[in-house]
Amino acid sequence: MPDIPDDLRDDLIATASALADAARVETLRHFRSPDLLTDNKLSAGFDPVTEADRAAERAMRDVLARRRPEDAILGEEFAAKAGTSGLTWVLDPIDGTRAYLSGTPTWGVLIAVGDDSGPIYGIVDQPFIGERFAGGLGQAWSDGPRGRSDLRTRPARPLDQAVLFTTFPEVGTQEEGRAFAALSRKVKLTRYGIDCYAYALVAAGQVDLVVEAGLQAYDIQGPMAVIEAAGGIVTAWDGGPAHHGGRVLAAANAEIHAAAMAELAAAL
Amino acid sequence: MPDIPDDLRDDLIATASALADAARVETLRHFRSPDLLTDNKLSAGFDPVTEADRAAERAMRDVLARRRPEDAILGEEFAAKAGTSGLTWVLDPIDGTRAYLSGTPTWGVLIAVGDDSGPIYGIVDQPFIGERFAGGLGQAWSDGPRGRSDLRTRPARPLDQAVLFTTFPEVGTQEEGRAFAALSRKVKLTRYGIDCYAYALVAAGQVDLVVEAGLQAYDIQGPMAVIEAAGGIVTAWDGGPAHHGGRVLAAANAEIHAAAMAELAAAL
Repeated sequence: MPDIPDDLRDDLIATASALADAARVETLRHFRSPDLLTDNKLSAGFDPVTEADRAAERAMRDVLARRRPEDAILGEEFAAKAGTSGLTWVLDPIDGTRAYLSGTPTWGVLIAVGDDSGPIYGIVDQPFIGERFAGGLGQAWSDGPRGRSDLRTRPARPLDQAVLFTTFPEVGTQEEGRAFAALSRKVKLTRYGIDCYAYALVAAGQVDLVVEAGLQAYDIQGPMAVIEAAGGIVTAWDGGPAHHGGRVLAAANAEIHAAAMAELAAAL
Repeated sequence: MPDIPDDLRDDLIATASALADAARVETLRHFRSPDLLTDNKLSAGFDPVTEADRAAERAMRDVLARRRPEDAILGEEFAAKAGTSGLTWVLDPIDGTRAYLSGTPTWGVLIAVGDDSGPIYGIVDQPFIGERFAGGLGQAWSDGPRGRSDLRTRPARPLDQAVLFTTFPEVGTQEEGRAFAALSRKVKLTRYGIDCYAYALVAAGQVDLVVEAGLQAYDIQGPMAVIEAAGGIVTAWDGGPAHHGGRVLAAANAEIHAAAMAELAAAL
């Protein structure tokens, strides 16, 4: 990404906030309602798509149509939209639909903007808690029940002192599951099932690693921008770029990233 | 429990709230601090006990010493205290220490008061979100980011439409794990690892079942009071009393309780 002029930078940050605000309204409208509508996007497996999911993405696309009509959009729920600016907004209106459907406040709205080389700014927003994590373009902060603070990832520690989060065993192939299990045996503590909130906790310096597989671009670009801005590293399991999704390894620092990547490689 | 006079009822409810308020201060003091002290209570396994855990229970015991010195206390962190009133307060200052240590807002403060036959009032409090679930003595309510509302469990639905929460695979014997897996295969969705918050979601009408094993009395009495007040059922896997802990089955209604109990029994 070439240098970004200050006015563009400010506009991207303000637009990302406006997107997250718009998605909060729509996602909270249905959260914990007793009559939440669901249908199955995939015939195999459980991948609920709620009215809230679609309404939140529509609301975000409306914001972009007004504020940034020249940018492209890649969203989970609707067809990709081409642009002319070279910038693409990558949107997941509700990451963690299973959490959303069961009332658990660990789902999130994921927003990123960037170009072909990856995201330059991102947001992970948890509307029910009222907690927002943002990073890129010189910023890395969270704002929530206890106010605003800077984000900074954890310093290095040995793998056997590390905390690892994942969506396994719910995702991944058998081979990926075995590699994950091999890594899991080397860490101090493995925790399951909190979706995108786990990435926010890496950015916030609370945990060391998140390892997942089978991700889409919209699952990872928002978290990736926040973690990298807070000092962490997000790559594919083999060290390649992660912004297209697939097998993703998010780490608090270079040392733990290298250690985890070596364990995964040895087990694959 | 014999009939409870109004003034005692009001005092118990107010005392429970005072306990939860006191625990909020102490648990939030250390939550997400980078220098959280931990040590291992059990030499095998990972069972961190934080300074916050101890400070929160001390703060609650101080409240009881002032307000209800005649009641007994059973807490996780310190020795049991005998009483003369026939009432016992059952306290878990931080249920979900793994969640607490990794910054995840699904741990809780568990408070119950009751007699030998079980809890008559309980609270599940999540200090970071600022969300409180309470039930018993004619009440069943939550108060949180979106204000106060009544709690009511879900109506009956078939097992294959049910949402099940658990702390498995982290808890339980192999035999218990197999029984849990058998039940898990019959439900629509199984979710892992959010500790006491799962019980709050049963009370709030968001999920159908929580199944756990190896619980202590202080792990279940608070959630049990809240769920029962909201219309649910909490028993042992065999239908016996659950307030001493062990294998616990919490259900939104009698129908799903019976269906889950049958699956567990068939697999044991």
